[in-house]
Amino acid sequence: MQRADEGMGFLLQYENVAWYEDGVVRILDRRIYPIKTEYVICKTHGEVAQAIADMVTQSGGPYTAAAMGMALAAHEAKEMAGDELVIYMEKAAYTLSHARPTTVSKMVQIVDGAVEVVKDHVKKDECAREIVEPLREYAFHYINNNYRKYEKVGKYLADLIPQEGTIMTQCFAETIIGTLIRECHRQSNDIKMICAETRPYFQGARLTASVACDMGVDVAVITDNMPGFIMKDKQVDVFTSAADVISMDGYVVNKVGTFQIALAAAYHNIPYFVTGTPSPAHETIDSVKIEYRDPNLVMDAMGTKVTKEGVKAYYPAFDITPPKLCNGVVTDLGVFSPYQLGAYFQTEGK
Amino acid sequence: MQRADEGMGFLLQYENVAWYEDGVVRILDRRIYPIKTEYVICKTHGEVAQAIADMVTQSGGPYTAAAMGMALAAHEAKEMAGDELVIYMEKAAYTLSHARPTTVSKMVQIVDGAVEVVKDHVKKDECAREIVEPLREYAFHYINNNYRKYEKVGKYLADLIPQEGTIMTQCFAETIIGTLIRECHRQSNDIKMICAETRPYFQGARLTASVACDMGVDVAVITDNMPGFIMKDKQVDVFTSAADVISMDGYVVNKVGTFQIALAAAYHNIPYFVTGTPSPAHETIDSVKIEYRDPNLVMDAMGTKVTKEGVKAYYPAFDITPPKLCNGVVTDLGVFSPYQLGAYFQTEGK
Repeated sequence: MQRADEGMGFLLQYENVAWYEDGVVRILDRRIYPIKTEYVICKTHGEVAQAIADMVTQSGGPYTAAAMGMALAAHEAKEMAGDELVIYMEKAAYTLSHARPTTVSKMVQIVDGAVEVVKDHVKKDECAREIVEPLREYAFHYINNNYRKYEKVGKYLADLIPQEGTIMTQCFAETIIGTLIRECHRQSNDIKMICAETRPYFQGARLTASVACDMGVDVAVITDNMPGFIMKDKQVDVFTSAADVISMDGYVVNKVGTFQIALAAAYHNIPYFVTGTPSPAHETIDSVKIEYRDPNLVMDAMGTKVTKEGVKAYYPAFDITPPKLCNGVVTDLGVFSPYQLGAYFQTEGK
Repeated sequence: MQRADEGMGFLLQYENVAWYEDGVVRILDRRIYPIKTEYVICKTHGEVAQAIADMVTQSGGPYTAAAMGMALAAHEAKEMAGDELVIYMEKAAYTLSHARPTTVSKMVQIVDGAVEVVKDHVKKDECAREIVEPLREYAFHYINNNYRKYEKVGKYLADLIPQEGTIMTQCFAETIIGTLIRECHRQSNDIKMICAETRPYFQGARLTASVACDMGVDVAVITDNMPGFIMKDKQVDVFTSAADVISMDGYVVNKVGTFQIALAAAYHNIPYFVTGTPSPAHETIDSVKIEYRDPNLVMDAMGTKVTKEGVKAYYPAFDITPPKLCNGVVTDLGVFSPYQLGAYFQTEGK
């Protein structure tokens, strides 16, 4: 199967996302890249779950890591077979999919697919050792199909960017950053990008800006208090972000900060397009739980404490942007109104 | 004259703002406090201007530093007298007041007052050496009168905070943080505070949160992408900020980020009160120039670079919040509508 990561920045090459090989899953440590280029080497699926919980990778990374983690779980199970193996792999699936609370439903879909692969092979009386490679292939197909899907999303999004337009983003929309830029360049559209740094982990500054820079884009970083001013002063044409969840009633759950930028964009009459797929697992926004993380991370910036002993902190990882602030949900099947996401599932090709 | 800094946090004690003594101006380095408690020692008024330009102190700090810098300039001038001295001091006044572009008009007022002191004493045939102490007193009265004025502002603002209310702020509203908390405690109002960290210098995390903590307030820090979510989730009652300029047509120029928070506050029906004094030097917002600073500061967090070589950055120091997002201008003479700031100058006591 042809690889879909061609021409992408370093971060987006498969081997630098999450990769099973020779009994380990290797994950690029996105918490420190590009200051340092280091990998976390996981020798058990539990270590993969821990790496996901510890945010070694984020955005689309954890899904691939979880799928690769299933191959690793089979490697651990060695000669196990039959019901015993199925139970072991189901437990591994649970551990991997529940590493982070907000993304559970999408994670479950992916690891359940891997469990199905296990069951198919168990029926043929194969043992765990023989199922490692089919699971690795499952994980590879997962990421490769994702990239193909996001290639379509990138194309639909590129069609919404004016010639030599300026795009504002925050956090790291992952593959879509790569496919969007690749498509704009194919269309000879010399875009500019402005990335909000995205505290506390600086994904916008470290990841998005680095990928854009790798791919030859004129890219500037701003701090998270600047989008509202800069989008007007530097004449931003489009604000775009990915989403961790898009509920069927049109709410966007994404890295905290998205709501504020979308609100400022609406104020300045700049369109906001979210990329992703509506989630049938969330009929309404009410079923989404917003995760609070370790507050110490907010009181730290690249390893230095930023406030005094005795001060506390809050760290909500995500926020919620209502449909009225979103001008379109850009999917692999085209652009939909956030008020009619059911249409996505009635579209040809689905 | 009785000192008005009683009961204030460490940062707000006069000796820790900017202080002339024995031929030097000592300025607490707010860029690194509370990680380190260090002072920049300025031996010339040029060094004071440089310290202001370098953001050693900010918010109200530069005004006191400029006034103290005038005493230092007289100390430098030694035996100079007459026209020569006046010209020397006028040059010093220009250097100090123009250290930062956005605050020029207010700076000019303060240093011009010092030049008047010089002229009065020159008329009495006094030489520079004899004018150092009157200039130091002028600077002391400037900061002390400011604190008295801000005590009134703090009282008017405290009256707008519900019992056990939660206040959101960003950057460092300086003396008002101290007088507000002092007044709330006098009223037995056990307030909570939430401070946006305020990148790139973290004034919210380092300064505001530290002062609140010193004064016994339950205070939490958030990153600058979180106010929009947190103000709803943690039931914030009031957003308040200081201002670098409030133009007569009701626009607030303040540390970048204010606009975004005010916009989110309006969205969530939370009032935004700005503290300060309307500026007759700015009849409309059109006369305010928003300063862009060194972009390298945005690409750095507490001494660590946050992005890749080849990425650029923007650093607008301030933004502009329109009057429709502001529910009141809290002054030493009461609370005014941003749409009728002329009333401030017709109020008794002015």
